[in-house]
Amino acid sequence: MRTLKLTLQYDGTNYVGWQRQDSGMSIQMLLEDAIAPIERSRVTVHGAGRTDAGVHALAQVASVTLAAPIDPVTLARALNAELPRDVRVLSVEDAAPGFHARFSATGKVYEYRIVNAPIVSPFIQRYVWHVPVPLDIDVMRAASGALVGRHDFAAFQGAGSVVASTERTVRAITWQDGGGYDLPLVIRIDGNGFLRHMVRNVIGTLVEIGSGRWPASRAAEILASRNRTHAGPTAPAHGLFLVRVDYS
Amino acid sequence: MRTLKLTLQYDGTNYVGWQRQDSGMSIQMLLEDAIAPIERSRVTVHGAGRTDAGVHALAQVASVTLAAPIDPVTLARALNAELPRDVRVLSVEDAAPGFHARFSATGKVYEYRIVNAPIVSPFIQRYVWHVPVPLDIDVMRAASGALVGRHDFAAFQGAGSVVASTERTVRAITWQDGGGYDLPLVIRIDGNGFLRHMVRNVIGTLVEIGSGRWPASRAAEILASRNRTHAGPTAPAHGLFLVRVDYS
Repeated sequence: MRTLKLTLQYDGTNYVGWQRQDSGMSIQMLLEDAIAPIERSRVTVHGAGRTDAGVHALAQVASVTLAAPIDPVTLARALNAELPRDVRVLSVEDAAPGFHARFSATGKVYEYRIVNAPIVSPFIQRYVWHVPVPLDIDVMRAASGALVGRHDFAAFQGAGSVVASTERTVRAITWQDGGGYDLPLVIRIDGNGFLRHMVRNVIGTLVEIGSGRWPASRAAEILASRNRTHAGPTAPAHGLFLVRVDYS
Repeated sequence: MRTLKLTLQYDGTNYVGWQRQDSGMSIQMLLEDAIAPIERSRVTVHGAGRTDAGVHALAQVASVTLAAPIDPVTLARALNAELPRDVRVLSVEDAAPGFHARFSATGKVYEYRIVNAPIVSPFIQRYVWHVPVPLDIDVMRAASGALVGRHDFAAFQGAGSVVASTERTVRAITWQDGGGYDLPLVIRIDGNGFLRHMVRNVIGTLVEIGSGRWPASRAAEILASRNRTHAGPTAPAHGLFLVRVDYS
């Protein structure tokens, strides 16, 4: 048996998310269904991040253990021939035995994209959150500083989640303001791990602040409250990209 | 009555093209339907280029004559509120009486986008032609030189067209090779006018040359033949963008 590491890119628009669900087509299901005839057996593919319905990935990582003696390059080509065009395998590599896309990950980077202009280009509208009210990006950037570091992010966790610890380390939040209807504001969040909906709840909170509805100090107050009901609305899924998964 | 100039951007994927047709939804129909309640009467909107089904526009230009005393900025906002998100009005301006988007145009610029790599990024696959066989871009660029200038482009005209003259001037063909699965090769063609399918037939011919199936000299030979049956296959619509319309 060999363990393989797959790097994937997908447009999440048409999917219920990474994880296999009865309610519709998932990325995990597409991959497992494409690998089964090669392995001549059902397999389980593990993803590094369980991206929600509508969330995109520039470089999701998945792991799978196979008996089939197929070489990685041939496997990548065979999967791309089978998968729909909105899901692509960028690479397949041999991994160390025991490698697990999710449990071996030491960090992840997400990007959230916002167009803060009266209109959005048709060519990026599926990949950004359109916020037409003017945002004060400098105030948002300053407010986000309170979230960097090791904190209990319970206030930014999606409802209904149960995890052993809600402490996470956000290593950096970086901002790049395209400033146009076809050039989004890109907010990049690098952390050792993320709670369910954490990025989208952080972004929803920062947009409340940027629009002037909330003072900049509110981000730190919400964090300290550890109470989900205090955070801003959850930003839409279709502005979120999983852009990198780190392994040591 | 006032004449207005509209600049539009659209993702052509879901449309039968610019022109109103019985077979499905057109950009012209969307605009005319959105303007009718404002004008309280049916209007005809003229487009600079009759983009085919699936062809995109970064800056299509349209003209319309209205009696309604609505100011241009308000009209743009009203139209964008009505139109689907894959069609946007970038601007509306007052134009000189008699301005006609098509007949007043002195030139147009089209771009054709090709990904010449084994796979295409999911985020651009709707906007490029995927050519997986290796292309010699230098040979294509050299061959395209024969097409620049004033020529009879009859050999590159789509079947079934009848026009007074098939002479056109191609002012420039410029090449920008992104070289990646998410960075297309962009071929930009600037001309005083274009025959039906002319850009797509030129691109189809250049790809035959770039793949080595045809010698570079074939482009000039096809041009000189003035015979449509000699040109290469018509490149797919979804790689083509109308990027600019010029007026003197």
